[in-house]
Amino acid sequence: MSYYDRWSSSNMSPVLGLSRRILETPFEKRVHEQGAKSFTVYNQMPLATCFQSFEADYWHLLEHVQIWDVACERQVEVRGPDALRLVELSTPRDVSKCRIGQCIYAPLCNQSGGIINDPLILRLAEDRFWISIADSGVLLWLQGLAIGRDFDVEVFDPVVAPCALQGPKADTVLTSVLGRDSRDIGFFRFLETTIAGTRVIVARSGWSGRGGFEIYLQDFKKGLGLWDEIWRHGEAHNIRAGCPNLIERIEAGLLSYGNDMTVDNNIFEIGLDRFVKLGKSAEYLSRAALDRVVNAGVRIKHVKIEVGGDPITPLRSTWPIECGGKPGGIVTSIAWSPRLKTNIANALVPVANTKMGTVFGIAVAGESTLRTAVVVSGWS
Amino acid sequence: MSYYDRWSSSNMSPVLGLSRRILETPFEKRVHEQGAKSFTVYNQMPLATCFQSFEADYWHLLEHVQIWDVACERQVEVRGPDALRLVELSTPRDVSKCRIGQCIYAPLCNQSGGIINDPLILRLAEDRFWISIADSGVLLWLQGLAIGRDFDVEVFDPVVAPCALQGPKADTVLTSVLGRDSRDIGFFRFLETTIAGTRVIVARSGWSGRGGFEIYLQDFKKGLGLWDEIWRHGEAHNIRAGCPNLIERIEAGLLSYGNDMTVDNNIFEIGLDRFVKLGKSAEYLSRAALDRVVNAGVRIKHVKIEVGGDPITPLRSTWPIECGGKPGGIVTSIAWSPRLKTNIANALVPVANTKMGTVFGIAVAGESTLRTAVVVSGWS
Repeated sequence: MSYYDRWSSSNMSPVLGLSRRILETPFEKRVHEQGAKSFTVYNQMPLATCFQSFEADYWHLLEHVQIWDVACERQVEVRGPDALRLVELSTPRDVSKCRIGQCIYAPLCNQSGGIINDPLILRLAEDRFWISIADSGVLLWLQGLAIGRDFDVEVFDPVVAPCALQGPKADTVLTSVLGRDSRDIGFFRFLETTIAGTRVIVARSGWSGRGGFEIYLQDFKKGLGLWDEIWRHGEAHNIRAGCPNLIERIEAGLLSYGNDMTVDNNIFEIGLDRFVKLGKSAEYLSRAALDRVVNAGVRIKHVKIEVGGDPITPLRSTWPIECGGKPGGIVTSIAWSPRLKTNIANALVPVANTKMGTVFGIAVAGESTLRTAVVVSGWS
Repeated sequence: MSYYDRWSSSNMSPVLGLSRRILETPFEKRVHEQGAKSFTVYNQMPLATCFQSFEADYWHLLEHVQIWDVACERQVEVRGPDALRLVELSTPRDVSKCRIGQCIYAPLCNQSGGIINDPLILRLAEDRFWISIADSGVLLWLQGLAIGRDFDVEVFDPVVAPCALQGPKADTVLTSVLGRDSRDIGFFRFLETTIAGTRVIVARSGWSGRGGFEIYLQDFKKGLGLWDEIWRHGEAHNIRAGCPNLIERIEAGLLSYGNDMTVDNNIFEIGLDRFVKLGKSAEYLSRAALDRVVNAGVRIKHVKIEVGGDPITPLRSTWPIECGGKPGGIVTSIAWSPRLKTNIANALVPVANTKMGTVFGIAVAGESTLRTAVVVSGWS
């Protein structure tokens, strides 16, 4: 029994009870049949977190191809004459530059500069967007903003549920599924096509560093048929059902909203300022607050760290960091990498502690002595 | 092994994986220690759904007293000169009638008349409210509305986590805890006091039909101390850790947002129109839409039904109803009542099917023949 198995069978991981309130996904039946062992709840939908084990899932994702039920990446559709105006208002990113058929990663920020969500935005038409959200109530926020400002726009949750095809063999499998070269789909570009008799949008995107696609289903009755069709083409390539993998996503530098950043953080602290255009011509809610941050500077910043010693179980809530005998930040995500043979983690630390090689002490939950950690540039 | 145990050990109920994103509650340690077996996620926090078994928890709640971790009933604080104006805008209930020290149940409704949430609203001061929410993103909705309308108001999530003391012995236990007669606290009234060295608000409210209190902790470090102090006074009265109980809440006529109603329903369909004052003098978002519903009437309405045959396991998503050979609505919640020895359920059905004694066929998931059901007035 690996340490991850011990963790997932501990009393910190009880049974998840499901009801109508946690919405059923169009792919959920297959996820259960294909052996999901643990789940989280994300945007009021189930999201698998582990199939065979974190480690087995990780190695398989690095080498083969997986199909993921990511229906919980729910879409907020913004449509109408003021659609661009509303989306621009919600983010410091310059959305006017996003072309039809393109997706952009765009942190949404409130009037205090806090990050509300870090979605992908798909531009379907000049006046029509899907905001593919992380776990927070963007739908109600944008509805409140739109009605408050009296914008001429519809904001709603369309009938859309994405699944993802991720891993180094995703291109090969999608080429087989589509009957055309999947390499025609550029990074963060999408096209509309038909798979298993249902219209879908296929984007080259996804929450892993291993490449692949997100496929947006629009007729929920066709969900299992879509899944099975992709599966059929993947069988020769050792396809498995999978899910976003904690180990792989930390290694790949993918940050998780709610874990590595919250509404209490701004884009500079998290290093997301490289995705935005401060001072863009369109109005945006966070303009004044983010300008103040630019002038004042930030006190904390995100860093990647390696934590010594034995494999550590994932965290339930943040762990405190000590640096030079003083409080030195918090650990926000952690996993043991079986490939790198070390614990890899994300942390938020005072700016003075962000230099490569800075050494920390980490107060791991349940351990009486501090672990030694060091700031690193990343993993590849 | 009861049928509920079989259900909760089936593959429809896998392990819940917890991370920082699912926020830790100040009482969570005790909930695990005291034997919670299954959880849901509610407002991005864990909420226990079962301790010993649904049935054992039910009988205990009917006869004794339980302490519940309901931190997931998160608070949205609205404070400032325009606080009343914003809260009024969000609901057709007449909030101006709510006195300081009083709580009111107030469905929040959007400009289409859809129910956004069905919270309790506590009035802490003329210009200060806590909205104690069901499972949806009210915080972001009200923040969007407030900034969109440029209201002079703060909308934020205060450091508050409620626990509940529920059951017929709750009055006795609280009297012991407070050292004064708990009957001085009227129904849906609250007072501020100190328990276990920490300031709390104690309201006579809670999500059961058995009476009791909700106790609002405001210093999370004192959560376990508060829990233990209540526990100590409850021991002579057979206190147990518990949680909202599916069986009891259906019997008591308590509806669950996300299960028995969604944003696609209006207050008339759910029978919540008795809590509001249409045409109140204050501005409210849903005025025009609800006026249209008054004129046009509704097509569906909530009813209570009894479903024949063996005990049925709780539902994952709605079950279709047949009436007179035609589609006749949906079942939204169901449980076997060991006291009434029948399956009790909530349903949404066409208005023509709402008469007492109307007979339905229910397509229970996994069963090949329809179950017979009948509309009833309620249970006591």
